[in-house]
Amino acid sequence: MGEESFNTAASSKHHMIGGDGPNSYARNSAYQKELLVSAEGLMQELIWKHLNFDPEKMKTFRIADFGCSVGPNAFLVVENIIAAVEKRCKPEDEVPEFHVFFNDVISNDFNTLFKLVPASRKYLVAAAPGSFHSRLFPKGTIHIAHCSTALHWLSRVPEKVCNRGRIHYSGAGKEVIKAYSCQYERDMEAFLRARGDELVSGGLMVLLLIGFPDGYTLASDSSIGQAFHILGSCLYDMAKMGKISEEDVDGFNLPFYYPSPTELKALIEANGAFSVERMVELGAPMRRNPDATTVVAHLRAVIGVLLQEHFGKEIVEEVFHLHLDKLLKKPNIVDHTHHKETIYFLFLKRNSY
Amino acid sequence: MGEESFNTAASSKHHMIGGDGPNSYARNSAYQKELLVSAEGLMQELIWKHLNFDPEKMKTFRIADFGCSVGPNAFLVVENIIAAVEKRCKPEDEVPEFHVFFNDVISNDFNTLFKLVPASRKYLVAAAPGSFHSRLFPKGTIHIAHCSTALHWLSRVPEKVCNRGRIHYSGAGKEVIKAYSCQYERDMEAFLRARGDELVSGGLMVLLLIGFPDGYTLASDSSIGQAFHILGSCLYDMAKMGKISEEDVDGFNLPFYYPSPTELKALIEANGAFSVERMVELGAPMRRNPDATTVVAHLRAVIGVLLQEHFGKEIVEEVFHLHLDKLLKKPNIVDHTHHKETIYFLFLKRNSY
Repeated sequence: MGEESFNTAASSKHHMIGGDGPNSYARNSAYQKELLVSAEGLMQELIWKHLNFDPEKMKTFRIADFGCSVGPNAFLVVENIIAAVEKRCKPEDEVPEFHVFFNDVISNDFNTLFKLVPASRKYLVAAAPGSFHSRLFPKGTIHIAHCSTALHWLSRVPEKVCNRGRIHYSGAGKEVIKAYSCQYERDMEAFLRARGDELVSGGLMVLLLIGFPDGYTLASDSSIGQAFHILGSCLYDMAKMGKISEEDVDGFNLPFYYPSPTELKALIEANGAFSVERMVELGAPMRRNPDATTVVAHLRAVIGVLLQEHFGKEIVEEVFHLHLDKLLKKPNIVDHTHHKETIYFLFLKRNSY
Repeated sequence: MGEESFNTAASSKHHMIGGDGPNSYARNSAYQKELLVSAEGLMQELIWKHLNFDPEKMKTFRIADFGCSVGPNAFLVVENIIAAVEKRCKPEDEVPEFHVFFNDVISNDFNTLFKLVPASRKYLVAAAPGSFHSRLFPKGTIHIAHCSTALHWLSRVPEKVCNRGRIHYSGAGKEVIKAYSCQYERDMEAFLRARGDELVSGGLMVLLLIGFPDGYTLASDSSIGQAFHILGSCLYDMAKMGKISEEDVDGFNLPFYYPSPTELKALIEANGAFSVERMVELGAPMRRNPDATTVVAHLRAVIGVLLQEHFGKEIVEEVFHLHLDKLLKKPNIVDHTHHKETIYFLFLKRNSY
């Protein structure tokens, strides 16, 4: 490390709604949970196959969940990983002590997370606050890393994006899309560089992320794009009503990016620290047409804080009220049958060093 | 670890007032800071002398602060420890990466702590939530442990203590004192057992704790005892006014214990994992007669949560108002000139294993 210092001043401030109230992420993350359950078997199988388990070197087995939010999904993942590692131990091996690190940005509600950690568990708990686009752990100390539906969060909205009439790159012009994809490239490079340093030689990394097949960037291509389009229209409605300024809506852009498999593979290859042992499309649970209230509650848990920071606290209630109204009046406004977004499951192995 | 599981259900819930408002611990911990400054030189000297620094084995150097509260004192301590370790490195050594764990009970305000961690620093930050009377870290992973003015917190008020007319053991009968000292014995045994497991062979532990010379247990022996006596009298005054019930005050006991050097040495010896490399009396900064407002603000930051949990939120303001009133009306009610309480600085080394 030497003269290097760890600076968090530039950390991303994005986080989910904390606590465990009706609008909290803790109570509105069933979608993410469904994904984890569908990935469970695959993850267990691949850990069994690829973990180089050495009980002498692994008296402490470190697991890190990146972008954990406030649980409870993070606890489920950790239990699955531990079960897989335990299966990998031979009867004569001493089972290692599991040290589990929950990571999220500094503004995440860790107080709630700690209260929700299962009282009886097989692991020691720690938290690592800070942006996962930077170093969080000492070199070569993490055995298994996990990151689920968090990597679409950009560390920042691309600079100087002129995106009038929209709040996201879906459906936007080439320049806007390019600005978003460049930001994603920078962020993924930073993420992979940091994890490459932190993982032990042969360490494993499981990523679940939302992506699109190559070339799909229209709002109508995805339920996500459509949801952002509707949310944008609600904000412009409120601007027309004089409740917020149109310039403020023009200047508001959601810091989310959904890569294609080609982009992902290219980024992992360019980084060079990891080999892709498996890449699978898990499908899109969203296709099952959740009811309007669920859709809005989920959006609010994820995006509520961003809206509040940009427009002020007062308008959040009304925006989501308008949003729900639109969904209820036109139940087919979001068409879930032709959507291109998919969950990608990636299983990476840290190359030997 | 095997079938062992880490259960936090029985964790102590005691914690300081969070946030950084006027009543917060963050703003009312100047007394604790003064102690740390007075111990700094000694700590640096002893780390230099006793640290078995092996750059090959210590690429990651782990430091844990037990009972960190919400800072900022914890950051000061950590910086001092790191400076001492760096001095110990030879010019040809690679400076290790420092991984610093901040520990306190689950109900501690970690959100505030994380926001206060210096943005620019030489270490990676982690938190370990949970009672320090239990295991928090994997075996043999901590190089230097630190715990400052936190070990007087008992994990619980001694059971079945009948302590009418008082809220603490100071000035109480033999039975009450015995119950408190037994609880302290159990808690220190648990603390030393856990730290003995967690520290590396040859690891160091710095303890700063408030204690009394042998045989002093009268309320009048200490400014602490006197402060608790006045606080108790305020609570009984409120009972007389009918604002709380006398039974409730009888049933309220402060979970603090201040050991003698003889007790401390006996407990460390009985545990057997540590050798006492140095034990020094640092004196009592309280002797300098702080003004009444400071005394009450400090008491409130430490004891406010306990009062609130036992009596309800409404009465806290009034109790401390009464307390301040008594101090202002009788400035000599607390006599700081004859006090027996002292800060003990203990420097322990984990015996080889």
